[in-house]
Amino acid sequence: MQIEAVDFFYLSMPQILDIGDGSQDALLVRVAAGGYVGWGECEAAPLPSIASLVCPMSHSACKPVQASVLGQRLESADDIVRIGNLVRANSMDLLQADHTLSGIDMALWDLLGRRLQEPVYRLLGYPRAYPKLPYASMLFGDTPQETLEKGKKARQLGYRAAKFGWGPIGLGTVQDDTDQFMAAREGLGEDGILLIDAGTVWKEDVDAAALRLPALQACQATWLEEPFVSGALDAYRRLAAQAGPVKLAGGEGSHNFHMAQHMIDHAGIGYIQIDAGRIGGITVAKQVADYARQRGVTYVNHTFTSHLALSASLQPYAGLEQDLICEYPVELKSLAVELTREHISLDEDGLIRLPERPGLGMTPNTEALQKYLVDVEIRVNGRLLYTTPPLTG
Amino acid sequence: MQIEAVDFFYLSMPQILDIGDGSQDALLVRVAAGGYVGWGECEAAPLPSIASLVCPMSHSACKPVQASVLGQRLESADDIVRIGNLVRANSMDLLQADHTLSGIDMALWDLLGRRLQEPVYRLLGYPRAYPKLPYASMLFGDTPQETLEKGKKARQLGYRAAKFGWGPIGLGTVQDDTDQFMAAREGLGEDGILLIDAGTVWKEDVDAAALRLPALQACQATWLEEPFVSGALDAYRRLAAQAGPVKLAGGEGSHNFHMAQHMIDHAGIGYIQIDAGRIGGITVAKQVADYARQRGVTYVNHTFTSHLALSASLQPYAGLEQDLICEYPVELKSLAVELTREHISLDEDGLIRLPERPGLGMTPNTEALQKYLVDVEIRVNGRLLYTTPPLTG
Repeated sequence: MQIEAVDFFYLSMPQILDIGDGSQDALLVRVAAGGYVGWGECEAAPLPSIASLVCPMSHSACKPVQASVLGQRLESADDIVRIGNLVRANSMDLLQADHTLSGIDMALWDLLGRRLQEPVYRLLGYPRAYPKLPYASMLFGDTPQETLEKGKKARQLGYRAAKFGWGPIGLGTVQDDTDQFMAAREGLGEDGILLIDAGTVWKEDVDAAALRLPALQACQATWLEEPFVSGALDAYRRLAAQAGPVKLAGGEGSHNFHMAQHMIDHAGIGYIQIDAGRIGGITVAKQVADYARQRGVTYVNHTFTSHLALSASLQPYAGLEQDLICEYPVELKSLAVELTREHISLDEDGLIRLPERPGLGMTPNTEALQKYLVDVEIRVNGRLLYTTPPLTG
Repeated sequence: MQIEAVDFFYLSMPQILDIGDGSQDALLVRVAAGGYVGWGECEAAPLPSIASLVCPMSHSACKPVQASVLGQRLESADDIVRIGNLVRANSMDLLQADHTLSGIDMALWDLLGRRLQEPVYRLLGYPRAYPKLPYASMLFGDTPQETLEKGKKARQLGYRAAKFGWGPIGLGTVQDDTDQFMAAREGLGEDGILLIDAGTVWKEDVDAAALRLPALQACQATWLEEPFVSGALDAYRRLAAQAGPVKLAGGEGSHNFHMAQHMIDHAGIGYIQIDAGRIGGITVAKQVADYARQRGVTYVNHTFTSHLALSASLQPYAGLEQDLICEYPVELKSLAVELTREHISLDEDGLIRLPERPGLGMTPNTEALQKYLVDVEIRVNGRLLYTTPPLTG
């Protein structure tokens, strides 16, 4: 097969709110080759990503992403690896390219899986996909009492794990944070897996974060996520050395293999969180999963958009039985819910399973998505470089 | 003052060749505040950068870059730092933003300098700007004889330093590379500063690179640049440990402070090469210069476009007398030459000096640039988000 078309679709809720909800828009990717189509999703700003797909060349290492994809051979997993390497070389000086490649890479795996009638995880070399334990991701309440109620609610909804993040953490006293952590534990119950997300609140201040370690240990938090900005490897490493049973988690901002590798090698983290929609796709995410395993670090997906993105983000570690926890978006906007016909739901044990269907096992609901489709036109010196294509299956 | 306008101008040669020459197009930035204008240049793909300036918001941490710049107060250097931090927070998930910010940050420094009637380096805290020793950057010849001739020519042109890069290095035998290195030294003369750029040819293969160390030592190379891909910190560190007097150089791809910090901390490099047009501007580049100095690493600019970009890239280490070497683009396309009315030229000692004029000391030649101006139009749902503004001073 030869790659005949790469189409990007910018989808958006009618109104975008100034809140930390990444499911308000989406950049859907469709790739066509040999009579098959594959679908992916960039976890990226849509307009700059579209521009990076179609822009004029600046020089030999700053080419539009499509220049390294269109017309390429696609017969095997090796071709997908090769295409990713081409993009990274030919678009080395185009910063947005990693995000743009991510959705294309997913679509290539999806297409190959559909053609070979295999789920993607099997093409990645995993004989089977183990169930994952999803955590409900929530904000801390404004008060410990609210946090306690949220924990209880998560249990009632069937979650055996919950992540509490942001909110007042780090902004008040150590005792304030302690009260919040203990309330989260109380709400979730003694046997629940409790995860805490500090939302980079301590920047690079190791001492401020370390003051919270006794409470994090007392509430038996499994991990403390992003205490610091993601490049602050040294701060991570120093905190990790003092944290005892509480492991550090981070890495969601990684947009290439090496950034994740640096966190694994130099930040002392116990959990590496990878968004397949940012790091260069399933291919690079799988490379990180392999590396993390060698280094004794647990892999976790980072996902806050559609179930197409969720399926893609779970494939890279589907076969790693011990890397059990997964992020599962719980409060999606209608766009992200309607993006796929199929969904990945909690079973009665509070677990989720990857579809056994070919590819990513997800079909975009192109009819439902028409109302979210954003009309984009980009002209350069009078030439139309991009116009939103018809969204069909 | 309040920032009233941020305008981007995409400039291009009539034809872009598929060669490693980054001076074939440019993204010029103009900022207006309080009756002053300032100019900067992003070392970036123009169209995706323009899109990242004006795109619709995706969520609270994925906003267009202009949202954190327009309307902001600009009275002092602290305001420029604050605006950069705002962009990094509000556009955290917009990958292209660091490249886009870079040109804006330069323009803000230029504007502030014009208003305060001070060159930028003085606003950065340097009492004076020391002369720099520019190196002529060249490709290796196809044969050692060609390389020898190129070295001779550089000396004739007045350069006391030269960098030879890419070409056949790493593609043939160790003896082939040895012959090239020795020819470069012979051409340049015994007292010339010889720099070697491997163009990442050994990817992560430390052994392959190490086989070239005896020849690099024999030809007295001051540095070996980018033997490996830029994220391969571990490979860098292992090679550096064996390299003796030959120092490693790298870092040009860094698009934030932490990436440069990781190279300084974990790659064992002797020289950190920073492109102020990529790393987030003069502000972040100065932060790296300060950090490098603490750690005993020498700072060098990375510049291959106009003399506006050159002036901006020299300011961050203008006052560091011992960090003497600088990159000086020698084979610019006419667009990059005509971009500024003033130029920074070699004096009779083979040194260059920063202008003592206010700001960056460079005036874009808006008349000459009209012929290179690219007409761009971006429409989203019928709304015109960007159209090329008139290019005037």
